[in-house]
Amino acid sequence: MRKLLMLAYLATGHLTVNAQYIADSTFIKSIADNILVSNTAHEYLYHLTKHIGGRLAGSPQAAAAERWGLQVFKALNADTAYWQPCMVPHWVRGGKDSAVLVYRDNFDITRTQVLNCLALGNTIGTGKQGVKARIIRINHFDELETYKAQIKGNVVFYNAPFEQTFIETFKAYGKNATYRSTGPSKAARYGAVAVMVRSMTHAYDNHAHTGATVYNDSFPKIPAVAIGLKDVTLLNQLFDGKHQQPFVHLFTNGQMLPDTIGNNVIAELRGTEFPNEIITIGGHLDSWDVAEGAHDDGTGIVQTIEVLRVFKALGYQPKRTIRFVLFANEENGTRGAKAYANAAKQRNEKHVFALESDAGGFTPRGFGITASNEVFEKIKNWASLLAPYYGNNIEHGGGGADIAPLNRTFNTPIAGLQPDSQRYFDLHHAVTDVFEAVNIREMQLGAVNMAALIYLVDKYGL
Amino acid sequence: MRKLLMLAYLATGHLTVNAQYIADSTFIKSIADNILVSNTAHEYLYHLTKHIGGRLAGSPQAAAAERWGLQVFKALNADTAYWQPCMVPHWVRGGKDSAVLVYRDNFDITRTQVLNCLALGNTIGTGKQGVKARIIRINHFDELETYKAQIKGNVVFYNAPFEQTFIETFKAYGKNATYRSTGPSKAARYGAVAVMVRSMTHAYDNHAHTGATVYNDSFPKIPAVAIGLKDVTLLNQLFDGKHQQPFVHLFTNGQMLPDTIGNNVIAELRGTEFPNEIITIGGHLDSWDVAEGAHDDGTGIVQTIEVLRVFKALGYQPKRTIRFVLFANEENGTRGAKAYANAAKQRNEKHVFALESDAGGFTPRGFGITASNEVFEKIKNWASLLAPYYGNNIEHGGGGADIAPLNRTFNTPIAGLQPDSQRYFDLHHAVTDVFEAVNIREMQLGAVNMAALIYLVDKYGL
Repeated sequence: MRKLLMLAYLATGHLTVNAQYIADSTFIKSIADNILVSNTAHEYLYHLTKHIGGRLAGSPQAAAAERWGLQVFKALNADTAYWQPCMVPHWVRGGKDSAVLVYRDNFDITRTQVLNCLALGNTIGTGKQGVKARIIRINHFDELETYKAQIKGNVVFYNAPFEQTFIETFKAYGKNATYRSTGPSKAARYGAVAVMVRSMTHAYDNHAHTGATVYNDSFPKIPAVAIGLKDVTLLNQLFDGKHQQPFVHLFTNGQMLPDTIGNNVIAELRGTEFPNEIITIGGHLDSWDVAEGAHDDGTGIVQTIEVLRVFKALGYQPKRTIRFVLFANEENGTRGAKAYANAAKQRNEKHVFALESDAGGFTPRGFGITASNEVFEKIKNWASLLAPYYGNNIEHGGGGADIAPLNRTFNTPIAGLQPDSQRYFDLHHAVTDVFEAVNIREMQLGAVNMAALIYLVDKYGL
Repeated sequence: MRKLLMLAYLATGHLTVNAQYIADSTFIKSIADNILVSNTAHEYLYHLTKHIGGRLAGSPQAAAAERWGLQVFKALNADTAYWQPCMVPHWVRGGKDSAVLVYRDNFDITRTQVLNCLALGNTIGTGKQGVKARIIRINHFDELETYKAQIKGNVVFYNAPFEQTFIETFKAYGKNATYRSTGPSKAARYGAVAVMVRSMTHAYDNHAHTGATVYNDSFPKIPAVAIGLKDVTLLNQLFDGKHQQPFVHLFTNGQMLPDTIGNNVIAELRGTEFPNEIITIGGHLDSWDVAEGAHDDGTGIVQTIEVLRVFKALGYQPKRTIRFVLFANEENGTRGAKAYANAAKQRNEKHVFALESDAGGFTPRGFGITASNEVFEKIKNWASLLAPYYGNNIEHGGGGADIAPLNRTFNTPIAGLQPDSQRYFDLHHAVTDVFEAVNIREMQLGAVNMAALIYLVDKYGL
C-alpha cells in the first residue's frame, strides 16, 4: 500500500508531496522502532497494575497513581507537569459482596449455591440483614410492565444476553450496558428491592463484571449486583425448568461517601509555532477497585506516557501544544473530563484535536473519529501512513468519555484508538483485568499509532 | 465498504452482480452467526488440548488425536471420512532436559545457575555423562569462521536476536529459525560438541521454545537445546562483562526411533457439479510434546472441523469436492503433507485450491496467497465480502507447510489464513501454548473467514 502510493505520487509528479510522504513515513518508522525496542511500556504498566493496583476515585490507590503519574511526567522532562484538581465521587465497596441462591431441586430438596457476584459501582448496600427475596427474571425492559405484579418486594434479574453475533463487541456492550446503568432505578420504580444483572461479557468463565449504576433520584435507591455467566446459566436452567421460583440472599456493603479531591495529571509539550492551539491525548487513570485496571485503562495511560517519551527521545518539537492527560474518575463520574473541559472554557483555550485510548491495549485496527466530514477525510488520507502499524481503519464515530466534553464544548474533532475488541469484554471490569492479560507489543503498537496520528495532526493541522 | 460496493453495483446497473453480492454476503453472515453462537469450537479445542494434549508424530497422543479426528468427521456426517497412512519420524525427548551454567562471579566465586532449556526436536542426546564444555557465543553465522579456533570441543551459543522492530512477527521468525534448523550442523562442522540457541521469541518470560533441527549428514550429529530469554540475558551479561568464559553442563536424552505409522485424517464433501475438482482445507494435527499445541495447530484443526460443521449445519452442498485434512507430522518431517501430495499425483487428481490455518487462532487479518496474478486478483476482489469479519487483507505470498507440496506438484493456488501475529511467538513451541491462551471468538472469526473463502472459491472457481 505504502509503496503503491509512493509510486502513484511519483508517477503524477507530486514530488513535494512525495518528499513529505517519505519524511512522514520515515519519522513514523522511527517512532515505531523506538517504542518497540523500549522496555518502558512494560515497566510503566507493571508499576501501575502491580505496585498500585485497582484505583477507584477517592481511594488511596487513586492518589498513589496521581503521584506516580506526575513523577513520570516530570522525569520525562515535559515542559510543564501539574495536577488539575477536581471533586470526585467517593464510592466504597465496603467489603465482600455475597449472593446465595436458594432453590428446590428436581427431588424438591432445598439447595443453596453461592453465586459469583460484584456490587455495581455507586450502589447502596443491603444492610447487615441483607436482602432475601424471590428472583424475577426480566429478559428485556419491556417485561417490567408484564411482570409488575411479581416484581414488588422481589429481586429483578436482568437477563438480556450479550450479543455473540456482533463482530464489534463494543456494539454488544452498547446494547447491554443500559441494564447496568439504568436497570436498578427502572426496577425500583416497580417496587423491586434489589437487582441482579447478567455480567456484560461473553467470557467462558464465571467472573462477575462490575460497572457504574446511575440512580434516578425519582425512585428508591436499591442494591444491585452483577452475576457471573455460569451462574446465569444455572439461574436460567431453574427458570426454564419446573422448579419453584428461586430466592436469593444478597449482602452488599456499598456506600457513597462525601465527594473528595481527585486530580487530572497533565503534562505539556509547548508548541513552537502555534502554542495556543492545543492537542489533547489521554486515557483515564482510575479503574475499578476489584481488578488491576490493566486494559481499562492502564494501557491507555501507558500509551499516553509513551507518546510523550518517544517525542522527547526523538527530539520532536511540536508546532502546537500537546497536552498529555491522565484523566481522573472516568469509571463512576467522569468528573476529571468535565473539569478539564470547564477549565478550558474558562481560559478560552483553543482545542484543535483530542485523542483517547480507552478500549484496551490490544493490536490496533484504526481510529474512530467524531468530526466534520472535511476533517474526517483529512485524517482518512493519512491511513496509508498508519497501515504498516495496523492503525489504518478510519471510521466515523468514536472518541472517548474523557474527551467527549471537549467535542460538546468546542466542537473539537475527537478520535478514539480502536484496538481489536474480541478479548476486551472477557476481562472488562472483572478481576481478570490484570497485567498478565496485556501483550506488551500489542499495547506498544497502539502507542505507535497514537504518536503517529498526533504527529500528523500537529504537523498539518486539521 | 460493503454498502459502498453495493451502491456502486446498483449505480452501474450490474443488477445480477449485485444480487449475487447480496446472496454471498447473506450466506457468509449465516456462516458467521452459526459459528459465533456455537459452542463446538470451544469443545473441540478443549478435548484436543486437555484430554489429548501434546501429540508429536509417533506418540500415543498423536494416535489418540487421529482416532478423535476420524470420530469427529464421522459424527459430522461427512460424505466420507478416512485415514491416509504414511510413515512418520518417531523422535522422543526421553526425559527432562537440563542445562546448568557454571561461571565465576565478580568476586571470582564459582556459581551455578539452572537454565530453562528444551532439547530441539530430532536431536540426539548427550549420553548419561552429559556434555560439559565452555560456551562460545556466536551472534551470527559469519562469526563461526571468526571463532573457529575456540569452537572445537566447546558449546556454541547462537545469540541472534528476534527482531522486535519487525511488525509482522513471522518475518522475525523467518530470519531466526535457521539458527535452530541448520545451526547445530553448522557448528558441528567446526567441531562444536553441542549447541544452545536463543529461543525464537520476544516473550518477557523465561520459557524455552523448542522446534525441529535438520541435521546435515556431512557433519557429526550433536545435541542442541533452546534457552529461555531471561537466561539468555544472564549469559549475555557474563559475555559482556569481565568474567571468565562460562561453562555449561548439558543433559539431554533425545532419540530418533525407527519410523512409524501416522495418518492424515481426511473428510470429504463430494462436489455436486465438479466432483473431480478438489479444494483442500486443513491444519496439522501433530504438535510438540511439551505443550498442548493449542495455537500450533489446535486452532487450525478446530477451524477446519468448524468449516465442515457449518457447511453441514447450513445444508451447503458444494459444487466442487472439499477435502478437510488434519495433516500428520508437520512439526518434524511434514510427511503427512508429502504423502497427501504424492497420493494426489498418483491418482492424477485435480487440485484447484488449498487453504491452511497454521499461524495461530488469533483475530484474522486476511489471507496470504501464492498463486498467479490473475487468481490473486480474483481472490482480492472478494475482500469486501470478508471485511465484516476482518479477513480482507489479501497479500501475496503464503500458504502453509502442509499444502506447499500441492503448489509445487500441481501449481495449485494456495492460501494461508493470516491472523494477528503479535502473540504467536510468545507461546510457539513452548509450554505456554495451552487452551487458556486461546480466545474462542478470535479462533471462531478465523473459521468464519476460512469458510467464506472456501465457499467463494467453490462457487466461482479460480
